[in-house]
Amino acid sequence: MPEIPIGEYLFRRLKQIGIETIFGVPGDYELALLDQIEPQGLAWIGTPNELVGAYAADGYARIKGAAALVTTFGPGELSALCGIGGAFTEKVPVVHIVGYPINALQKSGKILHHTLGDGDHDHYLRISNELSCATTVLRDPATAASEIDRVLNAMLFYSQPGYIGISEDIAYSKVSDEYLDTPLVKVLPPGAPEAEAKAVAEIIKALESAKSPILMIDGGAARPSWSEHVNPLIEALKIPFFVTSMGKGVANEESPYFKGSYAGVGSWPASANDAVNSSDVILWLGNYPSDFNTGIFTVDVEGKTVIDLQRFSAKIGHVEYDARINYVLPKLVEAFNAHVQHPQLQIEQATPVASFAVPATIEHDWLWNRFSTFLKSGDLVIIETGTAQAGIGGTVFPAGVEGWTQTIYGSIGYATGAAAGAAVAAKETGKYKRLVLITGEGSMQLTIQGLTLLNRFGIPPVIFVLNNKGYTIERFFRGWTAGYNDVDNWDYGALSKAFAPEVPVKSFKVETGAELDSLMVDAEFNNATYPQIVEMMIGVDDAPSWMKIIFEEKKRRLLAGQDN
Amino acid sequence: MPEIPIGEYLFRRLKQIGIETIFGVPGDYELALLDQIEPQGLAWIGTPNELVGAYAADGYARIKGAAALVTTFGPGELSALCGIGGAFTEKVPVVHIVGYPINALQKSGKILHHTLGDGDHDHYLRISNELSCATTVLRDPATAASEIDRVLNAMLFYSQPGYIGISEDIAYSKVSDEYLDTPLVKVLPPGAPEAEAKAVAEIIKALESAKSPILMIDGGAARPSWSEHVNPLIEALKIPFFVTSMGKGVANEESPYFKGSYAGVGSWPASANDAVNSSDVILWLGNYPSDFNTGIFTVDVEGKTVIDLQRFSAKIGHVEYDARINYVLPKLVEAFNAHVQHPQLQIEQATPVASFAVPATIEHDWLWNRFSTFLKSGDLVIIETGTAQAGIGGTVFPAGVEGWTQTIYGSIGYATGAAAGAAVAAKETGKYKRLVLITGEGSMQLTIQGLTLLNRFGIPPVIFVLNNKGYTIERFFRGWTAGYNDVDNWDYGALSKAFAPEVPVKSFKVETGAELDSLMVDAEFNNATYPQIVEMMIGVDDAPSWMKIIFEEKKRRLLAGQDN
Repeated sequence: MPEIPIGEYLFRRLKQIGIETIFGVPGDYELALLDQIEPQGLAWIGTPNELVGAYAADGYARIKGAAALVTTFGPGELSALCGIGGAFTEKVPVVHIVGYPINALQKSGKILHHTLGDGDHDHYLRISNELSCATTVLRDPATAASEIDRVLNAMLFYSQPGYIGISEDIAYSKVSDEYLDTPLVKVLPPGAPEAEAKAVAEIIKALESAKSPILMIDGGAARPSWSEHVNPLIEALKIPFFVTSMGKGVANEESPYFKGSYAGVGSWPASANDAVNSSDVILWLGNYPSDFNTGIFTVDVEGKTVIDLQRFSAKIGHVEYDARINYVLPKLVEAFNAHVQHPQLQIEQATPVASFAVPATIEHDWLWNRFSTFLKSGDLVIIETGTAQAGIGGTVFPAGVEGWTQTIYGSIGYATGAAAGAAVAAKETGKYKRLVLITGEGSMQLTIQGLTLLNRFGIPPVIFVLNNKGYTIERFFRGWTAGYNDVDNWDYGALSKAFAPEVPVKSFKVETGAELDSLMVDAEFNNATYPQIVEMMIGVDDAPSWMKIIFEEKKRRLLAGQDN
Repeated sequence: MPEIPIGEYLFRRLKQIGIETIFGVPGDYELALLDQIEPQGLAWIGTPNELVGAYAADGYARIKGAAALVTTFGPGELSALCGIGGAFTEKVPVVHIVGYPINALQKSGKILHHTLGDGDHDHYLRISNELSCATTVLRDPATAASEIDRVLNAMLFYSQPGYIGISEDIAYSKVSDEYLDTPLVKVLPPGAPEAEAKAVAEIIKALESAKSPILMIDGGAARPSWSEHVNPLIEALKIPFFVTSMGKGVANEESPYFKGSYAGVGSWPASANDAVNSSDVILWLGNYPSDFNTGIFTVDVEGKTVIDLQRFSAKIGHVEYDARINYVLPKLVEAFNAHVQHPQLQIEQATPVASFAVPATIEHDWLWNRFSTFLKSGDLVIIETGTAQAGIGGTVFPAGVEGWTQTIYGSIGYATGAAAGAAVAAKETGKYKRLVLITGEGSMQLTIQGLTLLNRFGIPPVIFVLNNKGYTIERFFRGWTAGYNDVDNWDYGALSKAFAPEVPVKSFKVETGAELDSLMVDAEFNNATYPQIVEMMIGVDDAPSWMKIIFEEKKRRLLAGQDN
């Protein structure tokens, strides 16, 4: 049994689960480890900071099924934590590999750089324990391989971040490579077979006996692991379907069964809320009822039968089964395609793309509708939280367009970093042609240096920056004219070029609806193979009408003495 | 006793301890709090992200004695942690105020944005417990005032970060304002009077009986709280003095007693190491013996009497006294000025500024020496970790020039953010004329958006960016030609302008020694009242010769089987 360095072991494991690119920021504690990346046929992309790196890893993992981020002990790892927290919340499998000081130095009592100066080298591990499904700091070569496998398997099982601390000396200690013959468990194993069969039967029965069943595409339960079944299910079920904010970007919304983006009172079109309210049975894929995913808690399913499919359970009404969404969905597809009678509902046409006159200035209601015809098959769309996330509900995603928005955790700045990693993954899979990033300028300011990656790696990006001179969604919460909701004025086109002077980046600044409309039909713009950025000037006080409704409802409740 | 909102109470407390500007990034959980800032006569500076905000607060606190950073629960606070960790390590009093969801919502069990989705609202508090000397989340108005006072007093006492979580509802709950009449304890109280007297007497005795005593200016023990005594002590003692990396920037190095920057084998000039080695008694102010502060552990004081003055103790040899540096130093000044006989040493002249021919390309040894005559009284100099931190040892700081570098924690990207906060504090104090930031381009990439602050707020900055195409100091550790030590090519001049298009920013790119030399004597450049940035192209493999020596020694030790 040949012995290999532990660093090599780790990277071969990552390669086995489909990772081709490692993201991170170098630091001296991890350099010995980084030397072991390229010999394994893996690529390294150095990110301009750790937060961008963590977001990039999140974006990459959502497409490739896993990602790895390498940072250095202390400042490096702490800078990544916001991104790791998002992956934890949204169930994205990212392994955070941290370069530790060599063991003997840790034990020496000497004060090492990047420590807190107090000789306690476990502060950072305890911190990451809060944000990871499994953690380890490798201190003993004898258990290093099994510890690596334990953390990586937990990451894959829970679809959440794992943490592996590894020092220079450990990275070059040897382990047998025979462990590598036992594969990691990348695909979630099934639940109990009888429970699953029973759950499937009960779901079919509930849908068959429903008067007005609907399908809700949501984004919980580690959506990338079951999203391949969504469109087949829509075709098999032939019942109206809706997508939540977190569910946006996996369903073909050109389907005649698509009836709108669902967010309680803030649904688009407004009829979607009525349709959901008048349904009796809801097949809900990956329900994740956070405020931002429910039109700020304006979802009301009282009195309905909700079939709640999750990663580790299927719940029909109040009965829970040990059956898992990944396994239940294909069985439902098979059953409905084969022999099950589906309800004979009147389904006439898809939710139409609204027809608006092009406005003088860029207005939200027009803008989001306009994206429906700009987007094309092969687009991968990453949408920032905030106004853009609310707005995208008004865009009908054509077939072959995919994407997502970070709805639950809602960290501004996420989308720019995630898009950078997604673009790299998209290129590796060969499945996508164009990366479309839609972000507000207030959000983009947090991770603006992500442009260095977007402009250099992966499939070519088209970046839309909504410049409304501040945090407009915050203004809706409070401080309509408060200075704290303003952001500094930046030149986004110039920034994009300055972050990659040697790349032929193109930038546009549009102030009118007509300018944007023309750009969106321009053939060169649509087929560019180079990075493009479009700064769109939008009124400070404009917002999608469906978002305004949510905040009206929130205000009404506050006045009525309710908490939200 | 009039009742005031808890938010107002908090900000009035901050104002009492000298804070005039609050830094942060808005988020909806904290907006109610932010509304209470300006009515208290405090300024708000929104930072482009939380990490830049945390670094800015650190920089501000080092000048003003305390600072406050406001972020939002979850993503916001996590993004600031790397900066808070640095303040913890380097003993900088920053209060991290975090906007929490309202109490009723926290208790409701609903999934709120920015949470980890699991209903546990204490994850982030537990994380900050690792990086703070005191923490609280205010949940009860009855104890809110005393909790605020407890955390702020701990912050001032330990000179380390405190953490205060405060929700919208708590921010507007009422407390009596009579608590405000009991001042916070901003100045560290003295230790035991007898112990202090004894310690002072013993220190005087040790110095008087020494054959070759020296003074070491270091940076531990919360340097800003005792730095005012440094130059008086130098004048009173009349013995050779040295400054460590962390001690750089408080002593007048034009003094004839200045004998160099001390970093073990990497001292500049090399004679400084010999002088320290041949001393018998060292009066060491704020010893903080980390790797980066000791020429990677090449300091050797075996056999010498070290008088180790710290925040909470004075140690003479192996005897420790309950005496505190803030109180011991002025007593030593008084004693030596009055009657104590100091050793009659031959002190002939200051360590001279070396005389170099201007090199064709910009070389490190010349560059750092060149800064000695560029810097002028009234300059505040912030130096990035890495090559710049090593290099600055070769610069002789004229009288009236102050500054620092983050030596122990050593987080790249720190200096750009810290400089932004320092510039604001410098303007408030009226004590400084110009902010000089010296950073490497690899470091600056992490926090490049700090330029939006530097170009808009505080005293005017002159920013020197050492562009050596990557992480040169990392190359010295490992991977001399490895791709992971390269960084992307950015246009720093264009970036500086694009981050503040409305500001008359000037940028320079210099490739030769002559160009830089001319610029450094240019009157307009020296007296500019607008922001300036100078990108300096430097060879990938060049480094200060004293830094090369450290790495040679490190290599020698590794080959000899030693750990560092």
